[in-house]
Amino acid sequence: MTRDPATLVAAARDGNRTALARLLSLVERGGAEARAVGRLVHPLGGSTRTVGLTGAPGAGKSTLTSALVGAIRRDGLDVAVLAVDPSSPFSGGAILGDRVRMGEHALDDGVFIRSMATRGHLGGLALATPEAIRVLDATGHQRVLVETVGVGQVEVEVASSADTTVVVVNPGWGDEVQAAKAGLMEIADVFVINKADRAGSADTRRDLEQMLALSPARDGWSPPIVETVAVDGRGVDDLWSALGEHERHLEATGLLERRRAERLDRELRAIVAERLHARALELCGGDEWDRLHADVLARRLDPWSASDRLLAEA
Amino acid sequence: MTRDPATLVAAARDGNRTALARLLSLVERGGAEARAVGRLVHPLGGSTRTVGLTGAPGAGKSTLTSALVGAIRRDGLDVAVLAVDPSSPFSGGAILGDRVRMGEHALDDGVFIRSMATRGHLGGLALATPEAIRVLDATGHQRVLVETVGVGQVEVEVASSADTTVVVVNPGWGDEVQAAKAGLMEIADVFVINKADRAGSADTRRDLEQMLALSPARDGWSPPIVETVAVDGRGVDDLWSALGEHERHLEATGLLERRRAERLDRELRAIVAERLHARALELCGGDEWDRLHADVLARRLDPWSASDRLLAEA
Repeated sequence: MTRDPATLVAAARDGNRTALARLLSLVERGGAEARAVGRLVHPLGGSTRTVGLTGAPGAGKSTLTSALVGAIRRDGLDVAVLAVDPSSPFSGGAILGDRVRMGEHALDDGVFIRSMATRGHLGGLALATPEAIRVLDATGHQRVLVETVGVGQVEVEVASSADTTVVVVNPGWGDEVQAAKAGLMEIADVFVINKADRAGSADTRRDLEQMLALSPARDGWSPPIVETVAVDGRGVDDLWSALGEHERHLEATGLLERRRAERLDRELRAIVAERLHARALELCGGDEWDRLHADVLARRLDPWSASDRLLAEA
Repeated sequence: MTRDPATLVAAARDGNRTALARLLSLVERGGAEARAVGRLVHPLGGSTRTVGLTGAPGAGKSTLTSALVGAIRRDGLDVAVLAVDPSSPFSGGAILGDRVRMGEHALDDGVFIRSMATRGHLGGLALATPEAIRVLDATGHQRVLVETVGVGQVEVEVASSADTTVVVVNPGWGDEVQAAKAGLMEIADVFVINKADRAGSADTRRDLEQMLALSPARDGWSPPIVETVAVDGRGVDDLWSALGEHERHLEATGLLERRRAERLDRELRAIVAERLHARALELCGGDEWDRLHADVLARRLDPWSASDRLLAEA
């Protein structure tokens, strides 16, 4: 298949899933082709809503995400899932694995599932994820679910780059995520107690309610706590309703635009920093570098003037 | 007193210690004046030899450094001491403290002592230290001793930016610096067992000898182990001799030039990276930034094209 970004974008918008997968691979890989994809899809999007799901490994995020996809599909919306694993060098090439993971949606053309890792992208997942979301946006996915594997800094950053952030915990959650608790309280728009049929569910709800009561209210929204048993689908419609309420809150209060502006600010800064970093790597090598280095070593030139000359070419 | 770098450099070369202290303050602070100082002093130096001393807090480095200064002075050489503390925001303003610390040299015009911290220098001590050394070099100090407070990454980096690196340990050293041991073996040109009159000195020597026997030989030099009791001066002449041997080895083998070339390579890269970082901070603000941000948010422009325009002005 072609690697030409424009051809791929047109095909993906016509529903060609292979073209879409190829576009996401280009984005993941970074570089000139990723930038070309970014330029093409950015003006085509803007209507999708994104939901980030984060929580400790084993909290049942994949099962919950799959169940949520079912609820979204019952409303007739097209949906994409980005499963982001900052700790893995492997990625969406593993389509078979993705399909197996969410087997029930494998034959549904209204569902697109994709694993993402960093590969060569210099800016890492923090830069690749919004780019991937824009590709999915431009290709008609009305909801994009971004699922991360854990509650580390990168995971939290990625999950909270969505419009709505869901934090998934389990009964007795406190122990594994003790250190991350404060950070999770800050980013959660919706809390899910998954595996709520297990012992300790009521305690966990009380624990969360207490922490929420102590937290300053954020943007006029008090995060609801939804109980689910993702394996048999219990509570998943409640979660989908809670997400809808948050979406309406985002729009009614202007918060959606404000959050997007803030996210874009962070993203643009990261892009500028990444490109300057790439430029630094280029500058510190090659013939001119060798010559200036030799001049400074021989004290014909001082380090600051040498850096002036290098930067003049930047 | 004037802050004009050229006037200060001329005065400091005439032996004006206040001018020298002022120059080092400018270097410490970073920015345009530090760069001006760097441009002025770089062509004037090249003859000093530098010795870095590192080791765990409490190993007796200050006392040892003071005793070593005595030995160097007995050979009629002018010497400067840079006491570098990466963990402290305080610095050479504390001249009284420095004088007290090395009281016996307080009235000796052939000795200049200076504490250094980072203050505003963007590149931190890793960039400020070589600049300070060049100032001391250009003002006639034939030896510069760079003493760091601990064995963390920054300390080791700073200490090993000298021509010769001395690692100071005590009898029973293993416990405090277990994690740092491998790194210390890599940078040490000379080992000192200070407080060698204490129990366990022979064990520590054996321990070091075993580790050295297992380490690959570096640049045809096997680090000697010198035993000192800095408080009463025992062994300090042996240390001064060992340093002299290493200096001759550096020169005879061409290692001096090679190490300086490598250090300069690292320093130039750090300068380029620092200046690009400063540039990124400038780019991501101001009217043009606000306008581009708004254009991207409204999807009149994509993030990559926005970064193109910002970088075109860089």
